[in-house]
Amino acid sequence: MRLSNLLGERFKERAFEIESQNLMTRGGYMKQVGNGIYSLFTPAKRIQKKIERIIRDEMDNIDGQEVMFPVVMPASLWEMSGRFHSIGSELCRFKDRSGADLVLGMTHEEAAVHLAMNVAATYTKYPFMIYQIQTKFRDEPRARGGLIRVREFTMKDAYSFHTSQEDLEKYYERCHKAYERIFARVGLPEVISVLSDSGMMGGKVSHEFMLLTDIGEDTIVICPECGYKSNVEAADCIIKNVPDAELQPFQKVETFEHTTIEDISNFLKVPMQKTCKAVVYQRNEDDSYIIVFIRGDVELNEVKLRNHLKCLVHPAQNVELAGIVAGSIGPVGLKADCTVLFDKSLEGGTNYVCGANENGFHYTGFNIERDYGKPEYVDLGKAIEGGICPACGKKSITVSNGIEVGNIFQLGTKYTESMGMTYDDPNGERVHPIMGCYGIGVGRLIASICEEKHDDYGPIWPITVAPWQVHICALRSDNEEVKAAAETLYAELQSTGIEVLFDDRQVSAGFMFSDADLLGVPVRVVISPKTLQRGVFELSTRDKSVKEDIEIGSALDNISNLINKMTADINEVANSIK
Amino acid sequence: MRLSNLLGERFKERAFEIESQNLMTRGGYMKQVGNGIYSLFTPAKRIQKKIERIIRDEMDNIDGQEVMFPVVMPASLWEMSGRFHSIGSELCRFKDRSGADLVLGMTHEEAAVHLAMNVAATYTKYPFMIYQIQTKFRDEPRARGGLIRVREFTMKDAYSFHTSQEDLEKYYERCHKAYERIFARVGLPEVISVLSDSGMMGGKVSHEFMLLTDIGEDTIVICPECGYKSNVEAADCIIKNVPDAELQPFQKVETFEHTTIEDISNFLKVPMQKTCKAVVYQRNEDDSYIIVFIRGDVELNEVKLRNHLKCLVHPAQNVELAGIVAGSIGPVGLKADCTVLFDKSLEGGTNYVCGANENGFHYTGFNIERDYGKPEYVDLGKAIEGGICPACGKKSITVSNGIEVGNIFQLGTKYTESMGMTYDDPNGERVHPIMGCYGIGVGRLIASICEEKHDDYGPIWPITVAPWQVHICALRSDNEEVKAAAETLYAELQSTGIEVLFDDRQVSAGFMFSDADLLGVPVRVVISPKTLQRGVFELSTRDKSVKEDIEIGSALDNISNLINKMTADINEVANSIK
Repeated sequence: MRLSNLLGERFKERAFEIESQNLMTRGGYMKQVGNGIYSLFTPAKRIQKKIERIIRDEMDNIDGQEVMFPVVMPASLWEMSGRFHSIGSELCRFKDRSGADLVLGMTHEEAAVHLAMNVAATYTKYPFMIYQIQTKFRDEPRARGGLIRVREFTMKDAYSFHTSQEDLEKYYERCHKAYERIFARVGLPEVISVLSDSGMMGGKVSHEFMLLTDIGEDTIVICPECGYKSNVEAADCIIKNVPDAELQPFQKVETFEHTTIEDISNFLKVPMQKTCKAVVYQRNEDDSYIIVFIRGDVELNEVKLRNHLKCLVHPAQNVELAGIVAGSIGPVGLKADCTVLFDKSLEGGTNYVCGANENGFHYTGFNIERDYGKPEYVDLGKAIEGGICPACGKKSITVSNGIEVGNIFQLGTKYTESMGMTYDDPNGERVHPIMGCYGIGVGRLIASICEEKHDDYGPIWPITVAPWQVHICALRSDNEEVKAAAETLYAELQSTGIEVLFDDRQVSAGFMFSDADLLGVPVRVVISPKTLQRGVFELSTRDKSVKEDIEIGSALDNISNLINKMTADINEVANSIK
Repeated sequence: MRLSNLLGERFKERAFEIESQNLMTRGGYMKQVGNGIYSLFTPAKRIQKKIERIIRDEMDNIDGQEVMFPVVMPASLWEMSGRFHSIGSELCRFKDRSGADLVLGMTHEEAAVHLAMNVAATYTKYPFMIYQIQTKFRDEPRARGGLIRVREFTMKDAYSFHTSQEDLEKYYERCHKAYERIFARVGLPEVISVLSDSGMMGGKVSHEFMLLTDIGEDTIVICPECGYKSNVEAADCIIKNVPDAELQPFQKVETFEHTTIEDISNFLKVPMQKTCKAVVYQRNEDDSYIIVFIRGDVELNEVKLRNHLKCLVHPAQNVELAGIVAGSIGPVGLKADCTVLFDKSLEGGTNYVCGANENGFHYTGFNIERDYGKPEYVDLGKAIEGGICPACGKKSITVSNGIEVGNIFQLGTKYTESMGMTYDDPNGERVHPIMGCYGIGVGRLIASICEEKHDDYGPIWPITVAPWQVHICALRSDNEEVKAAAETLYAELQSTGIEVLFDDRQVSAGFMFSDADLLGVPVRVVISPKTLQRGVFELSTRDKSVKEDIEIGSALDNISNLINKMTADINEVANSIK
């Protein structure tokens, strides 16, 4: 492709904080159409197709059968699984011309069960896995970061069906390996898998594949001692409180206008660990209130709260209406009609500061069992840096941010049971098959690669997913010799099946190179009057690891060899995953 | 792929009237999820991917740049073009969680202009063409025929942008050729292009690509004399009436309970051509009435009526409320408040029978100019078999049914003007680019191929789009020799890159062959104890043109050669289109 024909413009102005969004906007990869909705220009579409090819290859390799489910589905399908009502407003619902309820697919468990339902009625048909690569829509409240978190996205989603838990686990492991190979093949071997919360998917064991990066929205708990890795949503928060030698008296103190736990901690000069903070939520279903008491320095994990209560919840509003004294909530003397929970982070601690349920006052010397009675402690907190590893028990937890680029779930029979899918086992009994499901967000993966592989000037696309393999820069293409040499090389490379972007524009070297940097093509060939004088082309790589002159006569071989080597380097990592 | 692993079942029961729907359901290609919404099993998905590859190849070949537009778009984009309001309920509209209006893309002119808008601001960027292959949703009132007319469908849609009408026409012609090659390459060289009505697309010249078949919903007017081909919606209806020698007196006759024009014609013993029929419509915008008088044997063409009135219309309801005497409507003495139109089919005729606007009565001897006054005749009728060709003037029109598998439009500046897209021309003037757009329905094309290429037992997929190239039937795979020979051939074929479906099940020959017929794989190899005794495999084609024994030692060569020949035969036709 000639760059002069390529639709899309590149520009210098920094447009966004997140670097992948910034570079992919500046590089002419995408254009926002609406909140969390993007069109892709050709370079991004080409990257997408390459990633899809790698995904297909690995899915076929683990006996996947590619199928296609609809984007728009009748609500009746989602009523069968119960999710038409249990999922919140991220599920888009609308009516067709006849008044029938429809939904936009945000995941396809229901569709997968529907497709397999009557055609896998005996045990001999199992196991099998079906997958698709398709557009999905999820009405995210907070779309952000370009392709990192969008509302419309392209996703590979796969569904496996089994006759035993063991068989599911075996396949789950195969799929885990396939995912490792996929991330390695697209140039991100650094992606790790972490334990995750199965949340609304309704399963038991699940993993997320995470790229650790500061801009990630997920919080990952890692133990460098034993290798434990978990999304904070699924990680036990273990804190050992050391009790004070002496219990202080329980007494009310005036705290004036101080209401936040940080303020109170400063004002009373007690560390945050010695405060008992209140977090107030409401159930979505009836707006009833929940108050969670938790150690001041620990954050509440909303997912754990949701799982504990088995219902959707949201941060509380208008707590005063419920008789709650915001800014001074405490366990003792609390008059509000609400569910009260104590987080495990408080267990074993002594002499806490807590609210007195009275404006301008708090208690000091609060000792839970003495002053309130022994509660049932529940794990609702987010694990913290330096916390105790749930796996090895060492005080070694580190906390990082990550982008979730894929996930795998052991679903169990949630969908096959609710939708009534059965097969006849060898004894003629009707049994529900056991499912697994496996997703990869293709667009988010593109952004993640960009986020991880870039310099100040643009993306550095791995050769396996790069929009083109070679970028020819013909400096001074008004020069007949340059033009002829560049056109010849362009034609030769293409005829050997190499994907070439050819910058044949009459623009300055600086302009040309800055465009090339933004397009991030891994191999670059510069042809100019100067190189021709020396009888060479200049061959370099976008990551700057190679920069050398190559003889014109052997250019084709040199370039092919470089491409093959770069490809082999990436695939070597992938091939070692077995 | 082993057939024993393939998800999907095949069955004998005839399920539908339309043969492609019947065979693709019976063959395990698809499953209905909702009204006009389907999931595809692997065989159909494989066919789809092959068709998409051919389409991509031809689109890239005419300098297309593949991009991706969103399925869900903000309504604001469609408000810019005016189509948010001008399109009826086939456009799905809904609100997101924030209350913003969204639409489901049924076509992407708006998105294409949006993407190109600011990145093609000077004439030097032109011409260019962008295309995508993406899921679309159109809330069709009458989904039917399996994948023939659905609500959700996969479509290739392309948009070209030009600086002159001449340039558009040149590109339009290139795209026409590319379409001819696409249809030839998927095995349907019989697809013809016909003139079409540009309808809501807002353009001038347009063509539809039609597969002529009795089950087609479109009506195609063809003149075998001069080669004129047009959708009936766009074809002038030319009829030359021969006046009677003598004008009869205009007189009222009792017609009792006879109300339809057929009844009247029979009762009064006058041919349909001598009757003046009334067809009543209403404007969508205000429900006001339109009465069209037309020759009794000619059908009204709703599209022509819509274009003439420049508004959406629908067949009238409750005409009595408007003072119209249904069953006896005539031009003379019509009291209703409505628009009255006379179709050209009445022009020059004499002595018509028409309604008397009085229950149980009609007029005979109605001579329009004498009894009513000279009206302006408008062409609103559907061309009829034996009508006069608008191109060569001969009385040679034939009428056929067809399925529309693609279309191309010269759009003009409708979208670039309404959405404010401009570029600077060489004189520095701001000008709106001129657009073309080009669509192919991928799913409908699959169904059309099946409709055209099948026998009583199943589809006969052309080798270029077949889900697999070779189908191995191992009869008596419990026999060790058969099993070994089949497994060896399966492995060998796959290792040379041939796509093989291997029926390794222990089922009867009849069962196996009937499945193979439904799967429609073009090349079949039968291996059985009998063939092995003769030292051969049996090689045949699904279309029955080949059936021969091949030596086991040379099987690979024989099969490859056959595949190559079948492919070459199809591509030869395509390559001849230049």
